[in-house]
Amino acid sequence: MKNLLSKLMQESRKNASNGRIADYIPELGKANPTDFSVSVVTMDGEITQAGDTNTSFTMQSVSKLFSLALALELLGPQVVFLKVGMDPTSEPFNSILKLEISDSHKPMNPMINAGAIAVVSILPFETSREKFEAVLNLIRKMAANADINVDEKVYLSEKLTGDRNRALAYFMKSTGEVSGEVEHHLDAYFRQCSITVTTKDLAVMGATLAANGVCPLNRERVLSPLTCRTLRAMMITCGMYNGSGEFALRVGIPAKSGVSGGILATVAERMGIGVWGPSLDEKGNSIAGIDFLEKLTKELELKSI
Amino acid sequence: MKNLLSKLMQESRKNASNGRIADYIPELGKANPTDFSVSVVTMDGEITQAGDTNTSFTMQSVSKLFSLALALELLGPQVVFLKVGMDPTSEPFNSILKLEISDSHKPMNPMINAGAIAVVSILPFETSREKFEAVLNLIRKMAANADINVDEKVYLSEKLTGDRNRALAYFMKSTGEVSGEVEHHLDAYFRQCSITVTTKDLAVMGATLAANGVCPLNRERVLSPLTCRTLRAMMITCGMYNGSGEFALRVGIPAKSGVSGGILATVAERMGIGVWGPSLDEKGNSIAGIDFLEKLTKELELKSI
Amino acid sequence: MKNLLSKLMQESRKNASNGRIADYIPELGKANPTDFSVSVVTMDGEITQAGDTNTSFTMQSVSKLFSLALALELLGPQVVFLKVGMDPTSEPFNSILKLEISDSHKPMNPMINAGAIAVVSILPFETSREKFEAVLNLIRKMAANADINVDEKVYLSEKLTGDRNRALAYFMKSTGEVSGEVEHHLDAYFRQCSITVTTKDLAVMGATLAANGVCPLNRERVLSPLTCRTLRAMMITCGMYNGSGEFALRVGIPAKSGVSGGILATVAERMGIGVWGPSLDEKGNSIAGIDFLEKLTKELELKSI
Amino acid sequence: MKNLLSKLMQESRKNASNGRIADYIPELGKANPTDFSVSVVTMDGEITQAGDTNTSFTMQSVSKLFSLALALELLGPQVVFLKVGMDPTSEPFNSILKLEISDSHKPMNPMINAGAIAVVSILPFETSREKFEAVLNLIRKMAANADINVDEKVYLSEKLTGDRNRALAYFMKSTGEVSGEVEHHLDAYFRQCSITVTTKDLAVMGATLAANGVCPLNRERVLSPLTCRTLRAMMITCGMYNGSGEFALRVGIPAKSGVSGGILATVAERMGIGVWGPSLDEKGNSIAGIDFLEKLTKELELKSI
Repeated sequence: MKNLLSKLMQESRKNASNGRIADYIPELGKANPTDFSVSVVTMDGEITQAGDTNTSFTMQSVSKLFSLALALELLGPQVVFLKVGMDPTSEPFNSILKLEISDSHKPMNPMINAGAIAVVSILPFETSREKFEAVLNLIRKMAANADINVDEKVYLSEKLTGDRNRALAYFMKSTGEVSGEVEHHLDAYFRQCSITVTTKDLAVMGATLAANGVCPLNRERVLSPLTCRTLRAMMITCGMYNGSGEFALRVGIPAKSGVSGGILATVAERMGIGVWGPSLDEKGNSIAGIDFLEKLTKELELKSI
Repeated sequence: MKNLLSKLMQESRKNASNGRIADYIPELGKANPTDFSVSVVTMDGEITQAGDTNTSFTMQSVSKLFSLALALELLGPQVVFLKVGMDPTSEPFNSILKLEISDSHKPMNPMINAGAIAVVSILPFETSREKFEAVLNLIRKMAANADINVDEKVYLSEKLTGDRNRALAYFMKSTGEVSGEVEHHLDAYFRQCSITVTTKDLAVMGATLAANGVCPLNRERVLSPLTCRTLRAMMITCGMYNGSGEFALRVGIPAKSGVSGGILATVAERMGIGVWGPSLDEKGNSIAGIDFLEKLTKELELKSI
Repeated sequence: MKNLLSKLMQESRKNASNGRIADYIPELGKANPTDFSVSVVTMDGEITQAGDTNTSFTMQSVSKLFSLALALELLGPQVVFLKVGMDPTSEPFNSILKLEISDSHKPMNPMINAGAIAVVSILPFETSREKFEAVLNLIRKMAANADINVDEKVYLSEKLTGDRNRALAYFMKSTGEVSGEVEHHLDAYFRQCSITVTTKDLAVMGATLAANGVCPLNRERVLSPLTCRTLRAMMITCGMYNGSGEFALRVGIPAKSGVSGGILATVAERMGIGVWGPSLDEKGNSIAGIDFLEKLTKELELKSI
Repeated sequence: MKNLLSKLMQESRKNASNGRIADYIPELGKANPTDFSVSVVTMDGEITQAGDTNTSFTMQSVSKLFSLALALELLGPQVVFLKVGMDPTSEPFNSILKLEISDSHKPMNPMINAGAIAVVSILPFETSREKFEAVLNLIRKMAANADINVDEKVYLSEKLTGDRNRALAYFMKSTGEVSGEVEHHLDAYFRQCSITVTTKDLAVMGATLAANGVCPLNRERVLSPLTCRTLRAMMITCGMYNGSGEFALRVGIPAKSGVSGGILATVAERMGIGVWGPSLDEKGNSIAGIDFLEKLTKELELKSI
């Protein structure tokens, strides 16, 4: 496995220079386009890694999985999917179009920004601090890593420049989709986007999802099987933004990407995979990351569809 | 298996009366809303059925799978996906919106009407008759049933009332996405939509997809494994129109629905499933059909994600 | 007046080379970009001209005024504005977007293609030939010129390449906005677009509108005052496509443009103006034509707002 | 004139009960639907009134005219129309759609909310307080009424509930259309919307516009003729939101409406008209107000087109 990962990692890294680093959050623009790392965690807790595995990065949209998981566990799917749809969309992750032209004004799904903000808005905690800490806590348990924390610089950079997200949130407030203090919801959202992890962390989280909620490192139950299945279903249809169809075709396993270049992938009852390469395609997904996952799923026959 | 199918079929049939029969093609409006049938074909060719399995119905959008398969086999994915996207959309199956506002003017994917018409337009045959016959021939082989044929009444009804499809096709002609004679492409498209099958036929086709292209009834190779994987990937993200996310969550296996109420579902290396119930939800999918598939995948642990 | 026209014409002609000849109808692409002519007809029937006034051109969208006028006279505003809106739009003249996303599916106004086709579709004649001839006849009377006729080459070119208009028409048929034979409606529409005139003809027609329906050349009543006021109102808000606001600001008189480069303008109780310069801005309006009208309205203090 | 106004006022008031009071700003919801008043000011400064002329109301969107006027005077049209378009739109006044799908991301015109906020954002003052005071000052001069002031309750209500406007403003910030502090711009905007006037004030302002910038009550120059012409042109094509075409047809003079039910209308070199009736049609314009203006322009032959 170690040799396979190293080999595929080398091959995929070559594609990194074709894309673009996300720079709309200024702090993200500082990443090195050729950095690349991959980690795999199997059901027996074995960890295999290759590349710049010590480098950490912020979770960005990957964190949407866990605010959704928390909402599902605390409120149940009925309540959550009253606020947010569950169908994929062809609009970009930060689009506002469908909020206006759809009859329900409901965000299409919890994997795009509007949907994720709506989910954060209904997390049943008093303050944005508590919301965030509950998400952080869940992420730490998913990854069996109590040291996971926020990158304050990225958080402040997000907060300062997150005007598109403000537009989405205020629009949903104006249609009644979101209630309460918009800036508080956004604060929790910006913080969770700025949680810093390594590909090992992502792989452990992916393995916990693959194991239907029990972390393979310490055998602790973190999520219910139903929540894990729900996340995997959302990932396969909506996890790679408006590139989810191409990803299903090329890779064919549930995955969630973030604009920092991280991807968390999961293969039910087999493994979790973490990949990171900050150079992105025009849909906001890591170029080298997708390339690696395509090769890996072919080599190991992981395709679940 | 027989008992399980009968039991689940009885339960799901109860939901049929909640929906609406498609009536925009007048001939479809004549269906009986409480008709319902299910068929399962496993990898060893065993067939199990329940319900009104002798009643046949037209394939409608299910046929999109096989014009796509034919294009993939004859032209290769590179050529096909130059003409049509591969990502899911939140617009309804007959929407024209994205053809205008997307920069490429390319239909989003081959499972919506615009995409399917674009695919038919590039099938490498001289006449619309030949295009259609090649698709029909493929469908007969997929189902190992040489008697499959067109319902001429439905075909004429489609042709007479297919103005939304004409709008889509002429729009694509105006942007250069489609070339040649629009009415010829539409003729082939209307004919393939009007191909008449039973749930057994759908189940055999689904089993052939599950077996990576070899029909389990007669062990003949009909499609390449790559084409089968491509179809399954398109089905999981786009197969149930703009209800594909909810379907992935509730059912979690690749499937393609048609407005006549048929659904073809497939579980790689396990089975093909055909369901038919003409009463539809507001996205155009069979209500009882989805309900049955949800129950069956739970009972048999078929979820592939 | 003669000297003024010549002077302004010379100045405006200089801008002609900045734009682009419409080439989506192949026959139109043959025009000479620096051709330019202007004609003015006052209420006493005096005609003043300058430039290439012998060159004729097709009316294109200018003809929309007269199919609308005919519908208003024969059916009354109530019936006409049940089928077509009366408000300006920011979408281009050939856009289909609003037909899908507006609740009524009604074309926004009779000055964009969809609206004009809807108007032609309700003209109360048996055949497309009769519809067209009634429009042609009205145009001949408006211009007091019985020799006005169709350019058959342009008509055939339009018919051959008018796929965007077909898309609009079939879309409206699918939503019930248009009934009857789409190709017949389009045939009448393509023919009226191909009616050939000179700027003198346009100026006389504009003068007839300015005189509330009585042609200043022969004192014959052609239209009712109400229809003339309705046309002038539609012209001021919608006559220059999605450039109508800028035109109101720069020029400030009712006008209707066509993609052949013609503009018919009218100043109530003062004059009609015809301009023609085939080089267009990106909204489809004659660059030199607008420039000339801006200068003329300033010189003669014609602005009506 | 007095008798005419009274008669027409009585007739138009009957239609008031058909509409709906704007209630999205809670304070506006308290208006009495059958209140109605009209005022006319001619070029010689004569004032004629009828109805509840002592009742005051907030200007709402009517104020957009004067922040635009101020920007035009201080920055010139070139600078202003770089930030905001000048063409009418078929989208509602608070729509965000075109900000996303238009290539320029520029608001369509200064008469819709997005455009007005963009105009306020570029007013060349340090603080939002100064911006607002400059607009208020201009309005006082236009109306020759130094007592005009803000309704603090309405202002606070707007500020509290103005989330759709926040969405528009943050969206424009995210695309670079707006810079600086969004909440400051909105504060100035909410304040100017809450400026309280009577129909007499509106009529004097309209008369000042009609007189090309010189107030007929005190002969003071307030605006340049160019700015007045620009405002009148924007009013005729965009002043009544997405009902501007119908208004041009029925009434045919430049006007600007607000959701409090006020309308400021102007007839170049003849008169200014103020109308107020809080019951609105579905586009946000005063039902009785439009009815009155239609009758008045017919009686006095005011139509300028």
